[in-house]
Amino acid sequence: MIVSDAKKGVVTPTIEAAANYEGMDPERLRRLVADGRAVIPRNINHSFSRIRSIGKGLRVKVNVNIGTSADVIDVSTELEKLNVALKFGTDSIMDLSTGGDLREFRRIFLDRCDTMFGTVPVYQSAVEKAREPSGAVVDMTSEDMFHSIESHAKDGVDFITVHCGVTREVIETLRTWRRKTGVVSRGGAIHLAWMIHHDIENPLYSDFDHLLDIAREYDLTLSLGDGLRPGGVADATDGPQITELITLAKLVRRARSSDVQVMVEGPGHIPLNQIEGNIALEKALCADAPFYVLGPIVTDVFPGYDHITSAIGGAVAGLSGADFLCSVTPSEHLSLPSVQDIKDGLIASRIAAHAVDLTRGIDFDVDVEMDRARYDLDWSEQYRLCYDADKALSYRSFHEGETCSMCGDYCALKLARRFLDGS
Amino acid sequence: MIVSDAKKGVVTPTIEAAANYEGMDPERLRRLVADGRAVIPRNINHSFSRIRSIGKGLRVKVNVNIGTSADVIDVSTELEKLNVALKFGTDSIMDLSTGGDLREFRRIFLDRCDTMFGTVPVYQSAVEKAREPSGAVVDMTSEDMFHSIESHAKDGVDFITVHCGVTREVIETLRTWRRKTGVVSRGGAIHLAWMIHHDIENPLYSDFDHLLDIAREYDLTLSLGDGLRPGGVADATDGPQITELITLAKLVRRARSSDVQVMVEGPGHIPLNQIEGNIALEKALCADAPFYVLGPIVTDVFPGYDHITSAIGGAVAGLSGADFLCSVTPSEHLSLPSVQDIKDGLIASRIAAHAVDLTRGIDFDVDVEMDRARYDLDWSEQYRLCYDADKALSYRSFHEGETCSMCGDYCALKLARRFLDGS
Repeated sequence: MIVSDAKKGVVTPTIEAAANYEGMDPERLRRLVADGRAVIPRNINHSFSRIRSIGKGLRVKVNVNIGTSADVIDVSTELEKLNVALKFGTDSIMDLSTGGDLREFRRIFLDRCDTMFGTVPVYQSAVEKAREPSGAVVDMTSEDMFHSIESHAKDGVDFITVHCGVTREVIETLRTWRRKTGVVSRGGAIHLAWMIHHDIENPLYSDFDHLLDIAREYDLTLSLGDGLRPGGVADATDGPQITELITLAKLVRRARSSDVQVMVEGPGHIPLNQIEGNIALEKALCADAPFYVLGPIVTDVFPGYDHITSAIGGAVAGLSGADFLCSVTPSEHLSLPSVQDIKDGLIASRIAAHAVDLTRGIDFDVDVEMDRARYDLDWSEQYRLCYDADKALSYRSFHEGETCSMCGDYCALKLARRFLDGS
Repeated sequence: MIVSDAKKGVVTPTIEAAANYEGMDPERLRRLVADGRAVIPRNINHSFSRIRSIGKGLRVKVNVNIGTSADVIDVSTELEKLNVALKFGTDSIMDLSTGGDLREFRRIFLDRCDTMFGTVPVYQSAVEKAREPSGAVVDMTSEDMFHSIESHAKDGVDFITVHCGVTREVIETLRTWRRKTGVVSRGGAIHLAWMIHHDIENPLYSDFDHLLDIAREYDLTLSLGDGLRPGGVADATDGPQITELITLAKLVRRARSSDVQVMVEGPGHIPLNQIEGNIALEKALCADAPFYVLGPIVTDVFPGYDHITSAIGGAVAGLSGADFLCSVTPSEHLSLPSVQDIKDGLIASRIAAHAVDLTRGIDFDVDVEMDRARYDLDWSEQYRLCYDADKALSYRSFHEGETCSMCGDYCALKLARRFLDGS
């Protein structure tokens, strides 16, 4: 098991592979994993080549969500999304399917996913109940929840989102706060509905030890979901959000002492000037547990462009210490994303991640090479260094001169070079 | 004249119009203008309705560049760009034409531009010389430069970029520093070439008083160009850039004491973690002169997506105190932008500007209304509040239910609302 091995001082092949990707000393990564400041999600039943660590000072990682919905069930389109996400450098795939044969789809995706793979098991238990004649999501039992988690673990899922922090206390806070957007996390809403309906505590919280047992058995990483993340900038950094975060911070400590890898999920929608504080709070409360943020989206009035609102938030979050960005597509808040939306969302997140990596001294040389290629007006070298060369080429196709059609003969580079260097 | 009036304590109709747009007390804006911490570009020969102030604590403004190049001369396309920019809420248009009949194009644009309008007059004097038989940009005289400035001022241009900071001292610094990208500012390169060729000082620096006289006569705002802005993240915050900035800071003081409105232009390409420092430096050195930034672009390896790399940089710059963002299109570094590129670049900049405005307490209510509309699943209200409703509608067209196709029946908002509020 990765944590117990790391604590014993053993650099496993998994740690070595993850350290290689970072270009860092494996021993340093081992210490981060032993301390819980980094995680390397990898289920014992899933073998894949793109081994990634997530955590303090490492490259910022990016996740892409795929999956069917009740309205749109087309597994081949979701497979296309998986492929485009892998092609454009995702570090992780999450399957959020809620429509069709969830287990079959999960196995198909896992089989083709050469990187870490995550899910939200409660969707399955909820959806299965809701589909029964006159059934509802609240009809599931706590056994159903754990059963679903165990079956995902067995299948080889590397990390799961578990909404352990949606407690009775949090629901009380929610009643006090009168949020503008209520609850926007699907998993959070399912747990909340279930708890109010049955008038009992969240089993993932009250029986957290059971969850830890399953996780340890399969070397499954827990991603503590933020069921109370703000769904609009007006609700950012409020009582329910921070109450849940404090609960998650306690659970982080319990997971660590049980040798279970754990990370924490974060908002959501946050105004630009609250992002740094949110990251600092998570890092301080959760003792540097890796922070996995969705967005954050920094304004709510640009539907159709939420890959950009999120790239801004993700970059500022990364600069402030966030470790893992969940990419958001242009169709967020509007519809299930298309394959093109997945690509656009991923690239926007990769821009944010790379911009942050540069500030950590990572991959700066790639940008320096591009700067040189630009100075030399060496276009083939520029295309080689582009993250998406086809896209860049699509802008240049109608013009093949030495300079670009923006400046033409009045190219600043060329003019300055001639007079400054005589070249 | 706006500054002298403001210094005398007169709230002119122009100040009042600009203050109305900000929703602020005109007297407060008058003081900012008198101190030079805000400018309201408006030539006495240009009348337009979208009066805007730029400066400390005000709404972040956005500029869009249009203009022909030597390779692509199609004034009707440039007019389309102007119209799409006005439609999607630009605060300013700059005409950077270098191809065709520059004076005629400028007059056509000015005539149709219902917002402030800027140019770079040195392009005209340089291009006119370069077009003569065996002519070159360096053949222009200093009289040509001033003549071009005067003719732009007479035509009604509201603000001009003048590269007064490209001095002999800066060129020496440039020889010492051995930059990766040399000089990427067209105006900067033209001045540099000219100065080296003639072995004399930049007339816009040595005869700055002449420039001030012209500016005062037409109430023309000077935008002190950054001819030495870094052209790649590897060159950010280097000797040439900061040497030029110190020169600009001196000129700011001279302009202010001559009652000429002045702002300062800034980079360019800057790594994310250097943006805050760059803004703080400009604000401190230049005594809070309005800061007009191009981008900044935070990584160089995503050509085709530079509207996003710039939206990230612009948001962080705004958060750090930048006042005016020059929008960057997806075709930056590749080709002259299309009409669609102009729209995409502008919207990305508007996202950055609005995200910063929210942190200044400006327009937060619009986002709150959107949050409420989302909670109510009130789609027509959501479209009404969207910055680009057609874009949002394009994602929804295939699905017209109460919830969106991402969650369908498992809509978190609906589920939580039912159990929490019984609604």
